[in-house]
Amino acid sequence: MCSYHYSKNDSRCSVFGKEVFSDPTILEILEKYKQIWSLGYAIALIQWDMETNMPPDGIEERGAANAQLTVLQHRLLLSPELKTLVQKAKEKDNLTEQEKGIVRVLSREIEREEKLPERLIAELKEVTTKAHEAWLISRERKEAEPFLGYLDRIVALEREMAEKIGYKEHPYDALMDYFEEGFTTKKAKEMFDTIIPALKQSLEYVLSNETFPRCHYLESYRYDVERAKKVNEKILEMMDFPKKRGRLDVSAHPFTINIGHRDVRITTRYEGFDIRRTILSTIHEFGHALYELQVDDALSMTPIGTGVSMGVHESQSRFWENIIGRSRAFSKVIGAMLREEFPELRAYDDEEIYRYVNLVRPSFIRVDADELTYNFHIALRFEIERQLIAGEIKTSDVPELWNNMMEDLLGIKPRNYAEGFLQDIHWSQGSIGYFPSYSLGTVLAAQIKAKMESEVGSLSEIIEKKELGVIRGWLKEKIHKYGATYSPMELLQRSLGESLNPEYYVKYIREKYSK
Amino acid sequence: MCSYHYSKNDSRCSVFGKEVFSDPTILEILEKYKQIWSLGYAIALIQWDMETNMPPDGIEERGAANAQLTVLQHRLLLSPELKTLVQKAKEKDNLTEQEKGIVRVLSREIEREEKLPERLIAELKEVTTKAHEAWLISRERKEAEPFLGYLDRIVALEREMAEKIGYKEHPYDALMDYFEEGFTTKKAKEMFDTIIPALKQSLEYVLSNETFPRCHYLESYRYDVERAKKVNEKILEMMDFPKKRGRLDVSAHPFTINIGHRDVRITTRYEGFDIRRTILSTIHEFGHALYELQVDDALSMTPIGTGVSMGVHESQSRFWENIIGRSRAFSKVIGAMLREEFPELRAYDDEEIYRYVNLVRPSFIRVDADELTYNFHIALRFEIERQLIAGEIKTSDVPELWNNMMEDLLGIKPRNYAEGFLQDIHWSQGSIGYFPSYSLGTVLAAQIKAKMESEVGSLSEIIEKKELGVIRGWLKEKIHKYGATYSPMELLQRSLGESLNPEYYVKYIREKYSK
Repeated sequence: MCSYHYSKNDSRCSVFGKEVFSDPTILEILEKYKQIWSLGYAIALIQWDMETNMPPDGIEERGAANAQLTVLQHRLLLSPELKTLVQKAKEKDNLTEQEKGIVRVLSREIEREEKLPERLIAELKEVTTKAHEAWLISRERKEAEPFLGYLDRIVALEREMAEKIGYKEHPYDALMDYFEEGFTTKKAKEMFDTIIPALKQSLEYVLSNETFPRCHYLESYRYDVERAKKVNEKILEMMDFPKKRGRLDVSAHPFTINIGHRDVRITTRYEGFDIRRTILSTIHEFGHALYELQVDDALSMTPIGTGVSMGVHESQSRFWENIIGRSRAFSKVIGAMLREEFPELRAYDDEEIYRYVNLVRPSFIRVDADELTYNFHIALRFEIERQLIAGEIKTSDVPELWNNMMEDLLGIKPRNYAEGFLQDIHWSQGSIGYFPSYSLGTVLAAQIKAKMESEVGSLSEIIEKKELGVIRGWLKEKIHKYGATYSPMELLQRSLGESLNPEYYVKYIREKYSK
Repeated sequence: MCSYHYSKNDSRCSVFGKEVFSDPTILEILEKYKQIWSLGYAIALIQWDMETNMPPDGIEERGAANAQLTVLQHRLLLSPELKTLVQKAKEKDNLTEQEKGIVRVLSREIEREEKLPERLIAELKEVTTKAHEAWLISRERKEAEPFLGYLDRIVALEREMAEKIGYKEHPYDALMDYFEEGFTTKKAKEMFDTIIPALKQSLEYVLSNETFPRCHYLESYRYDVERAKKVNEKILEMMDFPKKRGRLDVSAHPFTINIGHRDVRITTRYEGFDIRRTILSTIHEFGHALYELQVDDALSMTPIGTGVSMGVHESQSRFWENIIGRSRAFSKVIGAMLREEFPELRAYDDEEIYRYVNLVRPSFIRVDADELTYNFHIALRFEIERQLIAGEIKTSDVPELWNNMMEDLLGIKPRNYAEGFLQDIHWSQGSIGYFPSYSLGTVLAAQIKAKMESEVGSLSEIIEKKELGVIRGWLKEKIHKYGATYSPMELLQRSLGESLNPEYYVKYIREKYSK
């Protein structure tokens, strides 16, 4: 039996044990799934290497290899043998929870793939390849075209896709469900309708009362990269990121990747200025990594051996970035490390560091947004995507609609389209329905905080005592260890005792920003 | 058309052009082969990452992924569709040289795989997994057992394998052919019978006349690793190793890996002493890498887009390591770089560096052997392997036979088995028939030198003038660009105008060591 706390020394520790899979059909499925898993393993490593180590001229062959492996994986997933086995398992009524989870995840994937005609997939792939090029050009020139034309085709294809997949209430549901099983337009709308007014109130309060500054001298302090690396390493060490099971590397855009259950890698970036960016990125990615690292060992190499959805994953990264990393208690940790590694910063006390990591400033670019304004950016994208997919607006409306909504929400109007609808890569890749998961994660993080504190006591005190193992242990027991055993909504119900409830987030924001 | 010299700026330069493949059956084969290639691509990246970056606890899952991908690749290679296509292509008489090469390589692989019963493969895999563990224990304890028992089973299985594969004259031929197409026991024996007496003579001369020293102060000089890295980088830059298509990393055992045609990576090691070891390793691996990098672009992602055999590959690494790296002319390059990076070494002039990189000292361990004694180590292994596979000796004879042969050949007797038959990993992995390729490569390197000099003039002068591009260009035109288009022996005949001729090596050794 595994200890309750995240165990550093026993990374093989499995709570469930191997006996969670005993049904002969499930065992056959798992045996077949190993090949699908191994292709995913290879694709993940290829992805990681591409962002960190690949010599630049390797890109073309890498693209070819990646495409071939993906096709191979797709073919194995849709093999008649696997389909028959999954169908057979579906009819059984004596499966364990984990076995049911396997059937749920595979059925979802197979059904979805089967509903989409190959012609549609091929067309979308072709359009997005060109759209990505066009997006780069448009963003560079700050002009709507040539990208806008491609966006129109992408939206048309995504609308067709929604029809093929099917939905109960809103075509956007079909697209969101891919990233967030069971999340609907209605639920997302309710969430934004609850949080946006509260965020507006808090934002007005902060801006008029200057409880948090709009800018800080430390933003322009140019740091030495090698020393910043040491700070990040110390933070990861303090958080108990297991070096035997992971790595920290450098890439242009920070990310986390689960290559295998015992090989989870994160990256960060070093821009040389505004040091909180690299620190908070590292903590954010640590949150993602911890989720993968704490999935039960018995689920490794199975369809449920990874985080359950984008939103729940984002709740973990946001929990560590915002709830822990931007807390007053943790500012002491960051402050002490910064002052130790950069003696020239010793004039900045903990309170100053707290203000620095919690600047509040309405701005155009989502990825640079602070905790308070971040969700406005997502609400805007959700509104536009929802209306596009419903056919309520045309893509040609998007550029100006974006800028006007920005002014409504944050009181600032983009000076050009690069600061507006051209800023994110997602649409050029055909990712529509993904953005709401970011807000869902942020909102869930606060809900998790509330539940956690009701069970283990004040997080501030735990952080002060540097007992982060308590937090990791709670997250493992309540969320991580299950992997994708339960659907996101079922997991919340079981672990938090209720479904998504944005009121916790409203309360968290009010307490932090309006006092 | 491509310029004759290795072109730095035009890495896409293809001499053959895409039209080398026009036969419809071949085009179908190549389309199918892309998936096999992409699995090889993934397996190569996994291998590289395992030696350079993988967190230690990732090993178990990595083994599983690797095994699954290998099975998948094997299955695709033996698919009835591919087999039928290859058979169909085989019957055509209007194929280009490259198309014939594709048929030759695929036929060889398919036929070999088909001849080996799955039971034999599985048994060998099982035994070698355990044998590797046993080998580590034996080497640690310097005791013949438990490894010797496993070696006995491995030899029995390899003998069975030779029978299944078939051979004309000697069962060992069947095993060698896997690594070196067309190389036979008879040819290998002729090679050793020619070079060993000459090497003995030169060794006696050197040892009695002290023309090269046995040891050197610089062997024990402890270097700063970061500065040694700079020396290696400068050497690679001077040799024009293309950073856009490759990397230099660190691993316990130096190696080269072709992940893709435009992503060829080498590694070296930094032990902190005897700095020539890291420099010569880097140059050795550069030789391997250059071969892969200079295969014609049109062959990328095909079965012939890589070096043709172990021996020809080793000829390239040995050419750069021995013929270039250990030459008097190149000692000036190394000397200048060492004195620049390590000012404390400025007392060592070029002649001293030449003597240092060319120490001659009979020793027990193959991988540490100098240029003159290296082939004795291989001759010994060849003799033992040949007799084992022929059933002329028993595995229980090996430990003492090894030690006695060592005394005969080099005049020194191992003090224990770790200095004797337990030193190499190969047998524990079931690699029997591989060693002769090392000597073949060394011997071929001298033959290549002779042919090259007859066409482009003295290598010393070319090196003095730092015109290494001439050497790279010649190697590309004569050897590299063909990849595996021709069998090794056919390639030699075409490019060097004659088949393997060890007399060039004898001449090279006599000129260097007996004057």
